[in-house]
Amino acid sequence: MDESNIHADRSWVVGIDAGGTRIRARLADAAGGPALGEGAGGPGNALSVAPGALARHLTEALRAALPSPTEGGSRHVRAVVAGFAGGGEGVGRERALAALARALDAVGAAPGAVEVYGDAEVAFAAGPGAPADGLVLIAGTGAAAARVERRRALRVVDGDGWLLGDAGSGYWLGREAVRAVLRALDGRGPDTALAGPVGEMCGGPGKEAVLRYAYEGHPVRLAALSPLVAGAAAAGDGPARELLDRAGVELCATVRALGPRPGEPLVVTGGLVGPGGPLLGRLVEGVREWGLVPVPVPDGVAGAVALARLAGSLDGASP
Amino acid sequence: MDESNIHADRSWVVGIDAGGTRIRARLADAAGGPALGEGAGGPGNALSVAPGALARHLTEALRAALPSPTEGGSRHVRAVVAGFAGGGEGVGRERALAALARALDAVGAAPGAVEVYGDAEVAFAAGPGAPADGLVLIAGTGAAAARVERRRALRVVDGDGWLLGDAGSGYWLGREAVRAVLRALDGRGPDTALAGPVGEMCGGPGKEAVLRYAYEGHPVRLAALSPLVAGAAAAGDGPARELLDRAGVELCATVRALGPRPGEPLVVTGGLVGPGGPLLGRLVEGVREWGLVPVPVPDGVAGAVALARLAGSLDGASP
Repeated sequence: MDESNIHADRSWVVGIDAGGTRIRARLADAAGGPALGEGAGGPGNALSVAPGALARHLTEALRAALPSPTEGGSRHVRAVVAGFAGGGEGVGRERALAALARALDAVGAAPGAVEVYGDAEVAFAAGPGAPADGLVLIAGTGAAAARVERRRALRVVDGDGWLLGDAGSGYWLGREAVRAVLRALDGRGPDTALAGPVGEMCGGPGKEAVLRYAYEGHPVRLAALSPLVAGAAAAGDGPARELLDRAGVELCATVRALGPRPGEPLVVTGGLVGPGGPLLGRLVEGVREWGLVPVPVPDGVAGAVALARLAGSLDGASP
Repeated sequence: MDESNIHADRSWVVGIDAGGTRIRARLADAAGGPALGEGAGGPGNALSVAPGALARHLTEALRAALPSPTEGGSRHVRAVVAGFAGGGEGVGRERALAALARALDAVGAAPGAVEVYGDAEVAFAAGPGAPADGLVLIAGTGAAAARVERRRALRVVDGDGWLLGDAGSGYWLGREAVRAVLRALDGRGPDTALAGPVGEMCGGPGKEAVLRYAYEGHPVRLAALSPLVAGAAAAGDGPARELLDRAGVELCATVRALGPRPGEPLVVTGGLVGPGGPLLGRLVEGVREWGLVPVPVPDGVAGAVALARLAGSLDGASP
């Protein structure tokens, strides 16, 4: 008896959320139900991660999510959907598709359906009932919002990156925290309790240490300082609280530019507005007047699985 | 008769303003009077220009400012004072002194007095009467202000660089112009006439071209866009005018943090607030209530010459 027959009645799908920091993969039954396997790999931004590394990180995540090769599980994977940061369209999408094909080959999977989405699209699909139309806001290291129609992002607002946008993101908060400390140090701004923890993170309490820390690495590392803002605000620091307020206003403005319609779904994710995120409350308040109720999801993996189930069934490969 | 006797009765000084973009050197009589020679060389930031290049750029500027070697002019130079961007103290000052020594050696000058200042200090000394105490504001590509006492900068406000500060500078204006255009393009901000010229500079009218332009070079290149803001504001564009207003407010806040005293000198320089600068009017208005009247100077060369004359006379080398 061929060992593959052990799983002969199985039909699986894989959902992948390839974010800027890491890739998450999830194996699930095509018909529904909980995760059957989970895996993680290195960074997955389709534009900024080199093609070879991208394929390797995907392979890592897939290997961990799938049953061991001796069980022959890979051959039961009917559909794979992956959402990539930077993979929404153009060059990024092409690179994502190519890397995904290499990774599937490496794990011995040959699904009938393979689809690539942007990270906003799988995040949106992670909303309850895997909605097809509505709004999504991502606010983690970066920040962007999109209007999704028929599962594809039709319009994107912000996502303009650390230098020019990502207003209200974790990077933005970290950078503004450092600026607030510098302004307090030279008398341009009010004193702030951020000076202590920011100075500690930067290796010294004065301007020189803070400037050296900020300029010697990639600017995006400043995102690591954003938890200090939430901490200082919780402890009652005025300038820190004001920064959170400003970030909340920026994120609401980003959503607003999409022209929200009362009652439509608004799925939100990322460290700042995902479940328990420090800006979720401000966001809930801010979008209420437009008739929106944010639904926080931890990431886009569940959405990728949902889209993979759809792709599998459309493909006719599911039982 | 030795050719050096031709100049036997001469006693000269050299003033140097070593800025981030170029170095200017000026030869003058130690006793007073107009420039006897002028020279220019490459970038002179003591912290960011490599030591060898810094010495070369200084040599270039000195060679052009001094009489030809056959006239033996170098030996009549009694004092040299140079103000360096990034050369105010610490490592920058040490590098500046070392590079200046190499350059003087290269041109055959052995002055009795050689002094290094920061760029703010020579800019301040360029004020009428070469004042010893007061305030100075530099707003060109970057922005910083200092309180000067006995010719040395005692306190500096801002100068925190493109990522974290230089509020109201040319870089700041250029970056905010790009942000305003991006916000107009995705509906977060009002339409702006900046979209046309900024798009042209970036090689295309859409987000993609603008983002590519901004992220593919060093961020400071965005300073090149600041003249577009002044242009659009002059043509009546609201958002452009608002940017100039905000820049003016930032520069005034920078001056204010120095604790201005009514009537004390405020010397201002740099593309934005030097003679004819687009923010000079706003600055004049803004600091009036603190009893200050900005005095614009084109650069710090005249200040370096004034300080060199002082150094030469203190040194006892002048006639």
